[in-house]
Amino acid sequence: MKIDGKAYRTIWLAQDGWTVEIIDQTKMPHDFAVARLTGLEEAAHAIRAMLVRGAPLIGATAAYGVALAMRADPSDAALETACVRLLATRPTAVNLRWALDRMRARLAPLPPAARAEAAYAEAAAVCDEDVAINRAIGEHGAALIREAARRKAPGEPVNVLTHCNAGWLATVDWGTALAPVYVAFEEGIRLHVWVDETRPRNQGASLTAWELNRHGVPHTVVVDNTGGHLMQHGLVDLCIVGTDRTTATGDVCNKIGTYLKALAAKDNGVPFYVALPSPTIDWGMADGVKEIPIEERDAREVTELTGITADGRIETVRVTPAGSPAVNYGFDVTPARLVTGLVTERGVCPATREGLAGLFPERAGGV
Amino acid sequence: MKIDGKAYRTIWLAQDGWTVEIIDQTKMPHDFAVARLTGLEEAAHAIRAMLVRGAPLIGATAAYGVALAMRADPSDAALETACVRLLATRPTAVNLRWALDRMRARLAPLPPAARAEAAYAEAAAVCDEDVAINRAIGEHGAALIREAARRKAPGEPVNVLTHCNAGWLATVDWGTALAPVYVAFEEGIRLHVWVDETRPRNQGASLTAWELNRHGVPHTVVVDNTGGHLMQHGLVDLCIVGTDRTTATGDVCNKIGTYLKALAAKDNGVPFYVALPSPTIDWGMADGVKEIPIEERDAREVTELTGITADGRIETVRVTPAGSPAVNYGFDVTPARLVTGLVTERGVCPATREGLAGLFPERAGGV
Repeated sequence: MKIDGKAYRTIWLAQDGWTVEIIDQTKMPHDFAVARLTGLEEAAHAIRAMLVRGAPLIGATAAYGVALAMRADPSDAALETACVRLLATRPTAVNLRWALDRMRARLAPLPPAARAEAAYAEAAAVCDEDVAINRAIGEHGAALIREAARRKAPGEPVNVLTHCNAGWLATVDWGTALAPVYVAFEEGIRLHVWVDETRPRNQGASLTAWELNRHGVPHTVVVDNTGGHLMQHGLVDLCIVGTDRTTATGDVCNKIGTYLKALAAKDNGVPFYVALPSPTIDWGMADGVKEIPIEERDAREVTELTGITADGRIETVRVTPAGSPAVNYGFDVTPARLVTGLVTERGVCPATREGLAGLFPERAGGV
Repeated sequence: MKIDGKAYRTIWLAQDGWTVEIIDQTKMPHDFAVARLTGLEEAAHAIRAMLVRGAPLIGATAAYGVALAMRADPSDAALETACVRLLATRPTAVNLRWALDRMRARLAPLPPAARAEAAYAEAAAVCDEDVAINRAIGEHGAALIREAARRKAPGEPVNVLTHCNAGWLATVDWGTALAPVYVAFEEGIRLHVWVDETRPRNQGASLTAWELNRHGVPHTVVVDNTGGHLMQHGLVDLCIVGTDRTTATGDVCNKIGTYLKALAAKDNGVPFYVALPSPTIDWGMADGVKEIPIEERDAREVTELTGITADGRIETVRVTPAGSPAVNYGFDVTPARLVTGLVTERGVCPATREGLAGLFPERAGGV
């Protein structure tokens, strides 16, 4: 997508042909900065410290992390070290494992001398495939928005609610949950996005608001507490969120608070869609609430916030009283029964084992 | 309750016998400051700018605001002006109207010369009655916590989740939702409180955490998105929240986001209680979602946050990108069907017209 008229992806190979550049998302929304990754540790740090975030982009960064590691040392031991090191950065992200498994499978059989070049090519392929997948998700999801638009009075925008950032900043390009919004917007459908702030890291208020704003899509930021009220009053036509991990049965593990919005959607008859590239599906998992490990992050993400002062300084402030502890669960699981449909690169299906198997028979069969 | 060993209420008559002192809650949790009210406009400002907040404390402050107005000018016109001015400060708070109606009814029949003294006496009575009511709510609610404690393994604390601040800082003393917690804590029941941050004004992270911390009650701050995950994993034994306005049918209007927690409680079989002093009941209202007007507050409460820096400066920072609009609905309505029970000063009842009428037959009969 575009920033100030210039087309960007979120990760790309630098001019020198080997270092990797990313948009440093920790600087957003008050600053736009590009960070350069020159080795495995920098790639691991970029994922761990969330310079990059979002399941697909994490996978892409991990793939390039392996490429950087192979350029430094293409041995079997280095390949294994790189995969182990990268996998440990974010335990919840299934794309991370998927991307690393793919890199290992591609590289391990090769003679070490051939690995670096193959690794770069494979990482580039991971990126290009992500873009193609997301564009396809956008096409399928836009049909749902088009359908909602037909039910609105003339001139009334379709109101979409989203949680966290599953926009183009979370992927290599287009986004997952926001891809349908961008495609519908390009088609000229009038729409408006309710942007959940998404505490504690505020990826909605910072990243989703930022990218919609730069792209010119009408939107309004609300605190995470607001969605229920909006749905009670007919102010949401559909919800679309992303997912970090989806079970074979359609349970969805996404940013903490997604489950609450799904409950509100169910209670008010609002369709609740989850957009996902198929690498996000964990075909070996059946019960998301019981089986998906939930990442517990630094409590300071809850107690402290960073923003910009009226005179332009970036400051971090503590909002809780000294001495009050906090905990920080990163994700929650929305049971499939609350999900109206899964929007994948192959189409929209019910959030059931049968629904997913119908679209991905070659993957589901193995379980 | 106590702060550093000294007993406080949230509002009291100053040593001079006529000015009114309050704890300035906008300074919390990083500073403890007492503000002095010397006239109607200061009282109105204290309510509007939320130096005081919480339905019962708003009512008490309004009562003293009328007293201050009567001391300056005890005429009929001044009485009317004071009531109109104070009523306009917070449209959602039914206690505000209740307190002002009570003051007007007490003062209007008196000769102007007698009004100031009577107003101070009536305001003091409003405060004392609030304390007695809240203590009674605490006794009735503590029985629910005691019951939950009996179902826990020995040594395991009862986990209570609360939203916003309905603690002693929201009332004259004891609190409503937290009164049961304080009574149970005094009885020696092991408990732990999950404190919802409560965006956008963070009254949970600042006020509830502050008062529990000062009182020594174990607690943990979580972002508002977390409650669903906690309930899915058996980490909440019961929810207790307050209410600004309750319909005769048991619908509850409380801080935005309460409805989402009630949905999660229902979905996970967790009891969801609402603690309320009976002045909070709007006996003339039957459908909360349709009838209760929801206060829309300044969007800057969403886009900006105030906290303390590592080196002790209070700073306000913007968290959203420049150019992204926000809206700020202050409250939402939790339908009675999601409420396990209403904890009043006369006992616990179902959230139904019959339940409330059973406890308050003299009020319900008039509808």
